Amino acid sequence: MNNTSIGHHISEQFNKELEDMRNHVLTMGGLVEEQIENAIKAFATADVELAEQVIKQDNQIDALEIALDRECMEILALRQPTAFDLRLLITMFKTINELERVGDLAEVIAKMAIVTSEVEGHPHAPYYEIQHMADLIKGMLHDALDSFARMSLDEVPAITARDELVDREYASIIRQQITYMMEDARNIKRTLNVLWTVRSLERIGDHACNICEHLVYMIKGEDVRHTSHEELEKKVKGE
Amino acid sequence: MNNTSIGHHISEQFNKELEDMRNHVLTMGGLVEEQIENAIKAFATADVELAEQVIKQDNQIDALEIALDRECMEILALRQPTAFDLRLLITMFKTINELERVGDLAEVIAKMAIVTSEVEGHPHAPYYEIQHMADLIKGMLHDALDSFARMSLDEVPAITARDELVDREYASIIRQQITYMMEDARNIKRTLNVLWTVRSLERIGDHACNICEHLVYMIKGEDVRHTSHEELEKKVKGE
Repeated sequence: MNNTSIGHHISEQFNKELEDMRNHVLTMGGLVEEQIENAIKAFATADVELAEQVIKQDNQIDALEIALDRECMEILALRQPTAFDLRLLITMFKTINELERVGDLAEVIAKMAIVTSEVEGHPHAPYYEIQHMADLIKGMLHDALDSFARMSLDEVPAITARDELVDREYASIIRQQITYMMEDARNIKRTLNVLWTVRSLERIGDHACNICEHLVYMIKGEDVRHTSHEELEKKVKGE
Repeated sequence: MNNTSIGHHISEQFNKELEDMRNHVLTMGGLVEEQIENAIKAFATADVELAEQVIKQDNQIDALEIALDRECMEILALRQPTAFDLRLLITMFKTINELERVGDLAEVIAKMAIVTSEVEGHPHAPYYEIQHMADLIKGMLHDALDSFARMSLDEVPAITARDELVDREYASIIRQQITYMMEDARNIKRTLNVLWTVRSLERIGDHACNICEHLVYMIKGEDVRHTSHEELEKKVKGE
């Protein structure tokens, strides 16, 4: 055990509070992952019922945000933590906020699924490409949450490096869709929904990277936001 | 003086730290307001030089985010605040984060200004409508920061109520632009830049509302995120 792990406190109760808090954040993370999965499925299969379920379920994520923020505040007020413990709690606040925003983006995708199902015309949406981009992003978020669960930075550089792939896939879908719009004006409305959807996916990737950056701060005490990937890698390795 | 103001501590030094922190957040806010102003101006006048200045200046906002977060952390660790003071510091963290995201959105608009200046064809963008929407949003952000400066909730319900107007203007511009795209495929690329720009503006309005909600939490200790406008108004009035 070292002082950058949860279980190092003399107070068993404090250890338990932090463990609980971490588990609650991970529960929220699991729910958010499920929301992305269902939103994309609803979009690809024009499943309005599933989309409505995602929209409804977002309330649960919002409620979790409020409850977990309160839990964090109570621990802060009661335990008056410093050093790693303080960074841990501030990182939890920030991670909760990132997850809530990812939940909102899943809701945007679900709304696009409903709007798209109402638009006339053939689908023609690049479902294969969107699915591929969604898989990439779900992987990034899952691995970021897994690193958070294990409080380990080992995978962090590999996760944030994937954001470049996401950006490339995003740009490629946008280019393809613009061509498609230009070919036939009847495609425009439907295609705009595809654009808002892939834009939302791209932003979920950014939030996954943000979670990784918060994690570096928590464990290393170094703020790696707005630095290059190389800089992040160096900080993770402690160079 | 009451216990929901900054100057109530016995320690003069602590009062000064909180005052400084508040002033630094307001400085960041002023810079962010300037960025929105310049980004919209660059977009409306196709001023590439000004757009590049906005993009460059975003680094300064990013650096401020890191510096102010650190300042907050130091006060938390040193002063171990509880009750109002703890809420004040957590609200500062959250407000800094909202401002940084607004800065990013101003950068998106500046990038759109550059891309648009390179696209062939007549402008035809709804500059009058965009300017009107931008004025509305700048007003919301300015008033939110003003409420933060005065630590007063008096104006908060009137600020968040304006978000509905923003949403209406946003929807109207989007509808108009879709028609415009359908009329002539050569308008598509340019019009997409308009869509990303108004989308960014709309999101800035959301961040202004978020700042108001954080402020309610700070002063009232009540979390009004994800509640209705009526609910927020009631909480502000302490009903």
